[in-house]
This record gives sequence, C-alpha cells and structure tokens, in this order.
Amino acid sequence: MGKLLIKDVVILPMDGVEREQPWFTGDIVVEGNIIKEVGEDLRYKYKGYEIIEGKGLLAMPGMLNCHTHAAMTLLRSYADDLPLQEWLEEKIWPREAHLQSDDIYWGTMLSILEMIKSGTTAFADMYFFMERGAQAVTESGIRASLCKGMIGLGKAKGEQDLAVAEELVKEWNGKADGRITCLLGPHAPYTCPPDYLREVIKLSDKLGVGLHIHLAETLKEVSDIEEQYGMRPLELMESIGLFENRHVIAAHCVHLSDKEVDILVKNKVGVAHNPQSNMKLASGIAPIPKLLQAGAIVGLGTDGAASNNNLDLLEEVRYCALLHKVSAQDPTVTPAYQVLDMATRMGAQVMGLDKVGSLKPGYKADIVLLDLQKPHLTPLHDVAANVVYSAQSSDVKTVIIDGKVVMKNKQMLTMDEERVMYEAQRCADDLLKRE
Amino acid sequence: MGKLLIKDVVILPMDGVEREQPWFTGDIVVEGNIIKEVGEDLRYKYKGYEIIEGKGLLAMPGMLNCHTHAAMTLLRSYADDLPLQEWLEEKIWPREAHLQSDDIYWGTMLSILEMIKSGTTAFADMYFFMERGAQAVTESGIRASLCKGMIGLGKAKGEQDLAVAEELVKEWNGKADGRITCLLGPHAPYTCPPDYLREVIKLSDKLGVGLHIHLAETLKEVSDIEEQYGMRPLELMESIGLFENRHVIAAHCVHLSDKEVDILVKNKVGVAHNPQSNMKLASGIAPIPKLLQAGAIVGLGTDGAASNNNLDLLEEVRYCALLHKVSAQDPTVTPAYQVLDMATRMGAQVMGLDKVGSLKPGYKADIVLLDLQKPHLTPLHDVAANVVYSAQSSDVKTVIIDGKVVMKNKQMLTMDEERVMYEAQRCADDLLKRE
Repeated sequence: MGKLLIKDVVILPMDGVEREQPWFTGDIVVEGNIIKEVGEDLRYKYKGYEIIEGKGLLAMPGMLNCHTHAAMTLLRSYADDLPLQEWLEEKIWPREAHLQSDDIYWGTMLSILEMIKSGTTAFADMYFFMERGAQAVTESGIRASLCKGMIGLGKAKGEQDLAVAEELVKEWNGKADGRITCLLGPHAPYTCPPDYLREVIKLSDKLGVGLHIHLAETLKEVSDIEEQYGMRPLELMESIGLFENRHVIAAHCVHLSDKEVDILVKNKVGVAHNPQSNMKLASGIAPIPKLLQAGAIVGLGTDGAASNNNLDLLEEVRYCALLHKVSAQDPTVTPAYQVLDMATRMGAQVMGLDKVGSLKPGYKADIVLLDLQKPHLTPLHDVAANVVYSAQSSDVKTVIIDGKVVMKNKQMLTMDEERVMYEAQRCADDLLKRE
Repeated sequence: MGKLLIKDVVILPMDGVEREQPWFTGDIVVEGNIIKEVGEDLRYKYKGYEIIEGKGLLAMPGMLNCHTHAAMTLLRSYADDLPLQEWLEEKIWPREAHLQSDDIYWGTMLSILEMIKSGTTAFADMYFFMERGAQAVTESGIRASLCKGMIGLGKAKGEQDLAVAEELVKEWNGKADGRITCLLGPHAPYTCPPDYLREVIKLSDKLGVGLHIHLAETLKEVSDIEEQYGMRPLELMESIGLFENRHVIAAHCVHLSDKEVDILVKNKVGVAHNPQSNMKLASGIAPIPKLLQAGAIVGLGTDGAASNNNLDLLEEVRYCALLHKVSAQDPTVTPAYQVLDMATRMGAQVMGLDKVGSLKPGYKADIVLLDLQKPHLTPLHDVAANVVYSAQSSDVKTVIIDGKVVMKNKQMLTMDEERVMYEAQRCADDLLKRE
C-alpha cells in the first residue's frame, strides 16, 4: 500500500465546510487510494511516508469533467466556425462513421493525457468502441464513467446498441480497481424515442446502473420535441420515468422552463454544464445561477474537442464564472468558490461518484498540485480567485489519482506522451482519408 | 546589428493577404529590428545569421494588448465578485489612492513579465506615475503606448493632470529605440467634462499625439451622459471634435447605437475590445460582429488585472471568438482567423503603430514562437483554429521584440522573473496595509 505525505502545501479542500477563508496551509496524508488525514503538522505524526514537497504549491481536489466524447480529440480543429447542421451533417457525422476501434483507443489516450496534464482526474465519456476507451482508462490511471452512445432510430440499430451497451457494463463496470464505472448512454430525446428509452430504462434497472444523456441542448431540440410530443424535453423524460430511482447525468440543459428546473432539482439529476461548447456552437446560455439557486446539482464539462476545442476544465471554470455574470448583468453571480465547487465536489455528485471531489479523510486520493509561483498568480491575495480567474492549466505540476502519482513535476508517469501524440496524429490523418 | 534566421517554422503571417490556407512552412529573416524576408528556404540565401530552430514551432506576430492598466496586477485577486460600485468605491479606488511610484514600477514589471510570457509584444497602458511604467518598458524590451490617466473633475486636479501628461509625452515619446509611444489619456466622458476634453484636445494638437479613452463601457455611463448632455457618449465626443485629425484608442465601446457605430467607422477610431473584463464586471457584450461588418478597426485588450484577472491575450482571443457566437446565436461569426487578426494586424492599427502586427518584410520584428508539439494542439488539422480554440499561453516558447530575443525557450532574458514576483508581492502586501 502506497503511503504519501504532501508537506507544507496550501490546501483548498473543497469539502463543503464553510470557513471564513476557504484555504489553509498544512499537510495531506494518503494511504493506498484514500486520503487518511488533512491538517497541520501531520509530518510529525506520520513517519516513513514518501514525502512530496508542497511548498509554493496549492493542493486541490482533481477536477471532474462531467461530459465529454473523449476520442473526438481526433477531430480537433477539423471543422470550425460552421453553421450547426453543416458542421454535424457534412463534417462530424461522416467522419465519425469511419471511426475504427484503434482510433478510439488513441483518441481517448490523447484526451486523457490532456486531461491529466490540466488537472482533471475523472471524466464522464459517451462514445463508440468504449471497450477501447476502458482500456485507455485502465492503462493511464485516470477515473472515468463510461457509456456507449446509443441511438434508437431504427429497430436493428437500437437493439444492437442495447446489446453493446449491456456488454460494456458487464465487462467493465467497477474494473481498474474501481476507477471505471459504467452507465447507459441514450444519446438524446431526438435520437431515442420514448419506446426506446423505456427499453434503456429496463436495461438500466436490470444492470443497476445509471444513465448519461444529452438534454435540452438547442432551441431546435426543444421545439422539435414539443411539436412531436406536446411536452418539453425534460417533461417528456420525466413522463417516461427516466429519472425514477436511478442516477442520471444530463448534459447541457441549456433551454429550461421553470418547471423543468424543478424536475431537475426534485429528481436530483446531475447537470453537466458545458459553457465553451454551448458558446462555440451558439446553443445558448444555460440558466446556471437559477439552477444553483434552486438547489440543482451542477458540474462542468468540456464536451468533445470538436466543439471546444480542448479538454481544459480550468477554462470551463473561468467561462462559467464570467459568462453568467454578463448574462445576468450581475458581477456577483457564479463567484469563484462556487464555480470551483462545481468543478470538484459537486462534479463528483453529478457523476454519481461516492467520496470523490474533496480533500477530506476517507475520500479517494484524487489530488492536483498547482504551482503558485507564477507571474500571473502574483500577488496572492485570494487563492480561490487566483485559481478561477488567473490560473492556467499548465500551472498543474503533479497529479495523484486513486492514490497513485500519475504526473510528477509535469512528467507523465503512466503514459508515453510523445507516442500518444504521434499515434493520435496518425489516426487523425488516416481518418480524414477514409472513404 | 543583430541578424536572426528562424528556420523551418510554420508561419502564420497575419499580413492581410488572402490565401486559401493562411499558414505555410518557411524561414524568417530578421535584420536589426526589422523583418527582412519571409519565405521558403531562405537559409540558403542568408548566411552567417544566428539560427533559431523553428521545427515543431509556429511563428506568428506578437499580440497587441490594446487596453490595460498594467500596474493593477498588484490588485489581482484583491476584490472579486462584488457589485460594480462597491468594487470601485470601497475596494479599488481607496487602494489606488495609496499607490506610490515604486508600486507602479514593480506592478508594471510584473505585467510585462506576464505579457511577454504569454505572447504579447506591445500594450497600451493608462495609469499613474507613468514615467515608472516607461522605465519598466525600457528595461524589459517590450513595446508600449503609454498615457497618464487624466481626470478633469475639479480645476486643480485637471490642470495638474494636463501638466503631468504633457511632461510624460515630452520626456518619453519615441524613447527606448522608438518602442515607447505616448498618448494623452483623458479617462472617460464621466470624469472629463467637455470643457476639459477641449483642453486635452488642444494639448494633443500642440504635442502631435493621439488619445486613449474609455468610452461607452456601462449602461450607467450611457444614461448619465445622455441625461447630462442630451447625447450618447460617442455623439458627445464627436460634437466636441475628439476624433478630428488625431488617432484615438477607444476602450470598451460596449453600448453603441447604430449612429455611434458609424461615428467609430467614419473617424477610424481604434476600438479596444475587452471581453473578459466586460463579462467579469457584467458591463455587457460589445457589438463586435456589427463593428467588424461596418469596417471598424477593432483590437483586443485585457483591461487591468483587477477585472480580468490576468493579462493573457490568448484568452481574450478565445473569449472574443466564443462570446459573440453565443450572443449572435450564430456559430459562424468571429471565426478563428478574424479574431487572430484583431489580436495582431488590426491591434497594431488600433494602437496606431506603423508596420507592426504582421510577419512581413519591412515590418518590426515582433515575433512569437509557439510550441505546436502539445497534446492539446494535436492533431493539427488547422493551425489558426488550434491557436484560437486550443492553445495555451504557456505554449509560447520564444519571443522576439524589435528584433531582440527577450524570451528564449521559456527563459526570460531581459528580466529577473523571481525578483519581479518577489518585489510585486512585497509592494502588494504593503499597499494593502497603507492607511
């Protein structure tokens, strides 16, 4: 069992405890994959532990990327600044149709490399060939919630997706020392009609796993669903029992009526807010201050790299903090600490992960050490504000996931960075040539 | 005279020339402070030059930060998430009243350190004790347009500011091998009444320099000015001849009528757009697509670090590209290349700098080399899109300003990074204690 002691570090525990100042200086003790203790001068109590020098660093919980399509990294910078339908129908979908199993492995490896280097220690992924994604998660040491994206348009395709999704859950749920959890991934209300969603719900009950779905992303989705079913997307989902007795990650939730906000709160749905993707695709601005005020569980996500175009969660933190201020015409909404809470403690709730997302005894040791000795983090009047409004993901120096050091002093220990970039570029070049 | 040859580099010249693909691979030759030639295989034509290996790097023009208050870095993370008036009146102004000359020197040094490291090679500054800012510019090697912020409320203060501003221009305009240009800096319509602005205009004519002013930043400004003068801010400025026969940098321009857009275009006013500051302070969303469509000159700025909270122009590039898409509900507006043009070629026009902002023969050698070998820049389908949507300012590896290498392989050559951070923190701590 690994025993680590992070010494003399500024700690932002993000543990939901109200303090006059949300950070303090101290030590963090890790035993195996668990945080044993957080506090002052622990170095005198715990002897013989591997010491990580924390002076000049900030320790915060690893961030959780609550919604992405990891292997879409291969399509980064392939198609930008286009109308939504043209982007999807002429660019993204035709290329996705050519994706092969190996692309998913290398695309996911690239995404994980990028996420770890920028302080993300867990992600919720929905895509294809997910067993290869699971392989990448296993090897890299990251934590992930995986699901096969399921499309219920057409009986054969729908049934096949149910079978593939079931196999993924049976094969991979709880694997990699528990770092992998699996969900079912019905894509969206407009690609999964109610009868199909009822099949998905049945399978979810049978397997005892939750769901990950896109909801209320665009105005077109809302009006199409309303026209077809006489209800808005979240009303439709509630009416078919999607939220009953199961954990659901709902990605986007951009266009919501007050009634739909209530539905999300009442059912404790985990909302994955993707500010950059919503801005880049011009989907709209999700009512995050209203959702938080109402008590909804809201985390942050990057969405896929084709609509972002990176997987830098610290950017989402900053975009979330700034976008809702200008949208609400109120500089006091989405304050620094609250947004950091969304990226960590609440993000774990969105992903349905127990004892993850805080630096707290008994919690999983998912810890990010960030270098505070940077011009753009000087002076240090307020640590949380500096992280949210000034830090760069390249300030992340060391990353611990499940008690294991996966990046130390910016050197990846679990992945061959050069090779991952090389293979991903090769897959991407090849993908663009396939007819 | 220094002779440099950057070899085998991906070049984004940002020279206003339309090409099917706006980048190509080649060499760049620098003689003294001027770009001599840009093209293929120049290494065989120019012998005996100092070689900078460009393989795996991107060369682009240094970015221009068209509006900041550099020494406000000292107030970074001092006061965030507050209502605007409370932030200004209870936090920022009382601290600014205690600023001393040495604070400006170290605060500006810190800002320049941060700007060079993130690929900014010129900035337009408005603040106090500007002779100390000029000292920092001279020593660090950056290019800057400096002005004393002038307040015309009260006769004595107004006259004093005119005298100090005049002295700055006489002392520093054209200094530091021409890297320093000076302007007059009447703060804003609500702090400089028309009669005072007429004095400023007279002085500007006498000295032959332009102006830098805040205009139409908040709705409150617009309604106050309308109430007092029966005209909107830009109409008022035009009516007193502010734009006649002189170059003006107009910061913010958030709230504009169609008539005011015409005023900006007709008078070739340089608009400095500060998306992060406008979002953080909830000032509003400037009509950038409309301004660009109308032919206005628009560059990007960070504003001061108290309302941003960093001086990372690449972030402003990305915010500009994304904010206007969601605001216009159109993912095709502010496309990647156009926004990069605002940060470089057009930014130089906003600052009124001749032959700056493009990689083009005869232009000033202000060049940024950015490392493309990064997970978040892989794959490389589109160089401009990768810079705008994926790059981090920490990807900047080498920076050349006025033909001189000021940062090489991430090592600052003109500044002592550790000392600047130390002194800035010391000044900031002291500033907070002053009564």
